[in-house]
Formats: sequence, C-alpha cells, structure tokens
Amino acid sequence: MMYSAGESQVATESTSHVEQENKARLSLIYEISKKVGSIPRVTQLLEQTVKMTQQTLKAAASSVLLFGDNEQELFFEVASGPVGKVLRRVRVSTKSGIAGWVARTGRPLLANDVNRERHFNRIIDDTTGFVTRSIICVPLVVHRKIMGVIEVLNKLDGSDFNEQDLEAVVSVASTAAMAIENTRLHQTVLDAYKSTITTLVATIDAKDPYTRGHSQRVMEYTLLGGASLSLTAEEMETLEYAGMLHDIGKIAIDTGILNKPDTLNSSEWNIMREHSAIGANLLKEVPFLEKARELVLYHHERYDGKGYPVGLKGEKIPMGARLIAVADAFDTMTTDRSYRRARAFDEAIKELHDCSSTHFCPIAVEAFVSSFPSMLKTTHLV
Amino acid sequence: MMYSAGESQVATESTSHVEQENKARLSLIYEISKKVGSIPRVTQLLEQTVKMTQQTLKAAASSVLLFGDNEQELFFEVASGPVGKVLRRVRVSTKSGIAGWVARTGRPLLANDVNRERHFNRIIDDTTGFVTRSIICVPLVVHRKIMGVIEVLNKLDGSDFNEQDLEAVVSVASTAAMAIENTRLHQTVLDAYKSTITTLVATIDAKDPYTRGHSQRVMEYTLLGGASLSLTAEEMETLEYAGMLHDIGKIAIDTGILNKPDTLNSSEWNIMREHSAIGANLLKEVPFLEKARELVLYHHERYDGKGYPVGLKGEKIPMGARLIAVADAFDTMTTDRSYRRARAFDEAIKELHDCSSTHFCPIAVEAFVSSFPSMLKTTHLV
Repeated sequence: MMYSAGESQVATESTSHVEQENKARLSLIYEISKKVGSIPRVTQLLEQTVKMTQQTLKAAASSVLLFGDNEQELFFEVASGPVGKVLRRVRVSTKSGIAGWVARTGRPLLANDVNRERHFNRIIDDTTGFVTRSIICVPLVVHRKIMGVIEVLNKLDGSDFNEQDLEAVVSVASTAAMAIENTRLHQTVLDAYKSTITTLVATIDAKDPYTRGHSQRVMEYTLLGGASLSLTAEEMETLEYAGMLHDIGKIAIDTGILNKPDTLNSSEWNIMREHSAIGANLLKEVPFLEKARELVLYHHERYDGKGYPVGLKGEKIPMGARLIAVADAFDTMTTDRSYRRARAFDEAIKELHDCSSTHFCPIAVEAFVSSFPSMLKTTHLV
Repeated sequence: MMYSAGESQVATESTSHVEQENKARLSLIYEISKKVGSIPRVTQLLEQTVKMTQQTLKAAASSVLLFGDNEQELFFEVASGPVGKVLRRVRVSTKSGIAGWVARTGRPLLANDVNRERHFNRIIDDTTGFVTRSIICVPLVVHRKIMGVIEVLNKLDGSDFNEQDLEAVVSVASTAAMAIENTRLHQTVLDAYKSTITTLVATIDAKDPYTRGHSQRVMEYTLLGGASLSLTAEEMETLEYAGMLHDIGKIAIDTGILNKPDTLNSSEWNIMREHSAIGANLLKEVPFLEKARELVLYHHERYDGKGYPVGLKGEKIPMGARLIAVADAFDTMTTDRSYRRARAFDEAIKELHDCSSTHFCPIAVEAFVSSFPSMLKTTHLV
C-alpha cells in the first residue's frame, strides 16, 4: 500500500481504510468457509464463527441465538465477548427485544444507537451487566425457514456499523445457518434409522412374548464378539442392526408354530426355517440395512455347511452371521422356553465349545467366549 | 471515489481497482448468501451461483461438477458459458484432468496457463470446442467429505486470476457444498421414512395374505376422501402414512384368529379388537409418524360412539380416522375374505350410505363416495 503526499492524502487514506476493511471481511468469510470443510462439530464451528466475526467487525461481542423447542424462546447457542459465559444459561422471549423481532420477522437490523430503536429491551443487559450501544442482528435462514439469529454488538472504536458490515454478517449467517441445518438433518437421519429398527423389533416382541428381550441380548452378545475381533465402527454398526433384527422374519410364522410347547414336527420345522429368508426379504427396501440384511439371511447357516437357508460353509458365511449364530444359540440356551427351562451360562459355554467347527465357527465361539465377562461365566442368569 | 492529480494517481487508481474488485467479491458472496435463504431448489441455486461467479470474476465460464454414483466419474451438475448446455451431458473420469485431480486430492488449483499445468488434459475441450486458457478449480467439501468441484474458466480481459479470486471461489464453494449436502440429507430423511413404512407394511403382508394389497388400497381410498375435503399437503401425508399402517397392530394377533374361516367368537373378537391400540403403541417410537399414530388408534371408532378402543363419538374422532374407517370398510366389503366373497362396488357404496351417521361420519362417506371414480361405481372389482 503506497501513501502519497499533499492534497490526495485524505482520499487515499480513506480508500485504504475501506479497502482494508473489505479485505478483512473477505478474509473472514474465506476463513469460515475453509472451516466448514474441516470442522466436524457444529458448535465448534459456530464458536469460531462468532469470535472471528467479532474481531473482524471490531466489535465487543457476538453470539448465535437459536429457537428452543418452540418459537417462543431463543437460547444462546454460542456467545463471545466479556459476558459470553453468563449468556449460555440465558433464554429470551421472542415477543420482545431486537433478537426476538429479527427471529420472528426474518428481517436483518442495524442500529448504531439502540436507545433510539423501538424493538430494543434492556432485559439481557440487566441480567448480564453488559451495556449494549450498537447492534447488527441478522436472521439465520435456510430454505425460507428461520432458525435463529446472529448478532454483533458495540463497535469498539466508537465508529458506526455500516451497510458493508451488515452484508458481511448476512454472508456469515448463511454459512452458519446451513451448518446448523446440516447437523440437524444428520441427527434426523440417525433418528429415523433408530426408530425404524426400534419399531421393527417391537413388532417381533409384540408377536412373540418368548423372544421379548432376545433381540436386544443377541445384539449385545454379537457386539461382544465383534469387539474382540477389533471390527471397524461401520462393521460394529452392521452387527448392531443385524443382531436386533435377526428374527424379524418370525413375524410371518404362524403363532401356533412359534409358541408350540412341544417339539416341532418336520413340516412345522420347514415353515419355521423360512424365517431367515423372509426376514432378509422384509428388509430389502431399507437402504441403510443393506449389509445387516445379509447377516439376517445367513444367521442360521452352520460352519459345517448343514445350516439353512443356503447351506453355506465355513469362511463363505459372513463373519457377522457366524457371530450372530453363536450369540443366538447362547441366548436361546440360557433363557426359559415354552418347552424347557434355561441352562446355566457355564453349561451353555461348554455346549458352544462342543459344537465348535461343526455348528459354529471356532473363531466366532472364541471371540464371544473370551469377551464374555468372566465373573458371569459360572453364574446362572439372574 | 475521488481522483487526485500527479504522482499519487497510479497508486490511487490501482487502489480503486483492487477496492472495486473486493467490493464485487463481497457482493457476490452476499448475494449468494441471500439466495440460500430464499431459493428452495438446489439446482436453481447452483445455476445462479455459477452465473454470478463467472460475472464477478470476469470469466468466460463456470461450472459445478459432482461425483457420480462412485468417485470414478464427475458429471456437470450446472454449467454457464458458451458450451454450458453441451456440458450437461458430459462425464469425466477423475483419473486425469484438473477437475479430477482437485476432486481426488481436495486441493484447490489456480492456473493462468493451463498448457503449463501437468494435470490439464484436453478431452473436454476436444468434446465441446471450448478452448481453456486459465482456470480456478476448488473442491466442494463439507465435514471433510469431498463431493465435487467448482471451476471458473478463462479470465476475459486477458489479466490473470489472483489469490483473492481463488479465496472468493473457496467461499462460494463452501456455500454450494453445504447447499448440496443439505438437499441430499433431506432426500435421505425422506428415503428413511419411506423405507420404514414400506417395511412395516411388508411385515403385515408377510403375516396375513388376506390383507395383501389391503393397506395400499385403504391408503388410496383415504386419500380420495382427503382430496375432496381439500386437506393440506401435510394432512394428506398423515393420511397416506396412517392409511398404509392402519392394520400394523395385526402383527400381534394370533394367525389362527386372523385367518379364521368362520365368524370369530366373543373372546376371539376381544383379541382382534386390540389391534388398533397395539398398532398405535408400536408406532410410538417413530417421531415422523406421531400424527398418523392417532389415526391408527382411532380407525375403528364409530360415529355413534359404539366403536373401539375408546368409544369416541362424532366430531371427537379425528377426521383422518373417520376417512380411514370408510376406506377400510369399503375395501373389506369389495374384496374376497376367508369367510365370504367380495361384494360389488355399488352394493358397498349403498352400504356406506346406509350406515352413514351410525357407523360412519356422513361427511367422510360423502367425501369418499363423491370422489370415487364414477365409471367404477357400478362395476365390480376386476
């Protein structure tokens, strides 16, 4: 940056001033943009966003406020500045105050003297001891949906906030709003997955009281085995889903067969054995269960190839399905059934060892048994 | 903007030039930010984004390329400039070329002479007839996940792209990437919802062959009634879910009772009547089915208060449940059951009218009958 003498100095200096401010604004947005790509947690991103916005605009404080459970209240999601920590516990009504007005109307507001601004109210200042003089407050909006506001308070050098400051905050607000929406959508997807599984498991339990809790325990036993094989997080997730849902196909099996107190005859057995294929078929419309589906299909295959529905043998059976087979047998042995009482844990573990290499994969048996809590091994189920 | 004479003129002019460019870059990002809040469709947002970016950077063309089904290929999602339309049909391998290199490595690239750039390849130019001279290419990244690139081609005034141009494109890229991710997550949520319902309906059908197709038809009949009452899109969605799932509680009913060829005795009836409450209970973990759940619970209430499970009467029964009651009865009458043959449509419609105000809500009957295709009214189900 060059400075020249004489008459032109004022013009050049003011030019240089504006230019530096615009450079700073561009760099603010650029830095936040880079962080969007690299920071996975949204709160951390927002914390850095308000801090950088406050600094760039040479202000005393900045914060992001979001709607609570309804649109009656806003809470401080993140806040920088001298009273930032206090604000974390503050909730404000959207009925009054500048933040409330901006959040309700979706219109940005710039006030260099809040005392002349009719929407201003002193409640938060009275709570925190902070004295608000000037403010930029911008709504957080994505796809016409308002989720809260971002505000920047008190220009530090005594000068005024201007239009360019406001526009920079609008740009920052858009990034912040999308990052928040993104995080919420991720959570919604997870919730939808979780509730799908919970509901499907509930349909099994509703039908067959003898299996109540069975799905949950088989899932837990399967995860024990998976953990001792050091599977990846993704593989563990697949085991969790498949463990919970392995018996979903029993939905289609006649209650008379399912709950028969005597041993099944051979035609009844043939019907019962359909449940793994029916289960896999039921799950075929659920993209996120694609991998779990294969384990549901093969959870009654035997290591020696004498299982069903296909007769897969040894290593051809997916490891997850081999783990579920062990977990399923263990839980079936150690709980009461309509036709017999539960066996003790140590007896069931001996049975798993006895059937290792014939019924069960030896690696799967060892993975489960070695990780099954040792104080439980000789105890009976409470 | 003031101009001064003499020595300082060069400095001031160049200052003014830089300043104007920075103002333009800020305004570009500001305008795109505002559009994020107001444009619901992502393709439209991206189209305007590339157009505005091209203009602001005084370039000949700009485009957004996204990964296809895998990361082997990129396709042009939007493209501005003289060959924009042609590019819509072009797919490029990520194995070579600048876009491929940026998409694979996640590193931005600026080249003012592409012929000296080792990653450049001429395939796209050869396809389109466009001659690439200079390029800025920036990855689209959210939470460390790369989804594609945005590129800006050929500075028009013969000058070079500079660091500030690159930083502006990084800011634009961040907004574009989040908008794309957002749209994809929205779709994932919808898919998860849809597959939850499909799977739940499949569990009913798997169990009870007599109801196969029943859920689908009841949903369609319910929507016919809803449409003629001019319900909102959200209410129609609730009807769709509830129509599909109204019998989900039958999952828990003994197959012997469900498929009994004779009339049920009173204790069997009592069990059968539990299905609406069981169904509502099954759905309680699914947030997006909260409203549908109420309709499942009340779909066997009668307008005269003699229904189950609660005995709600008249207007106290939610309108959606009254519509499902009509749709359910109509489909039950017009299809074969284990204990009787289907009745003709006109007979069933007469029966609905006869039971109007006792069994059924008159408004619901009228809504369904008036919208039931007239050419079908006197015909039997094919």
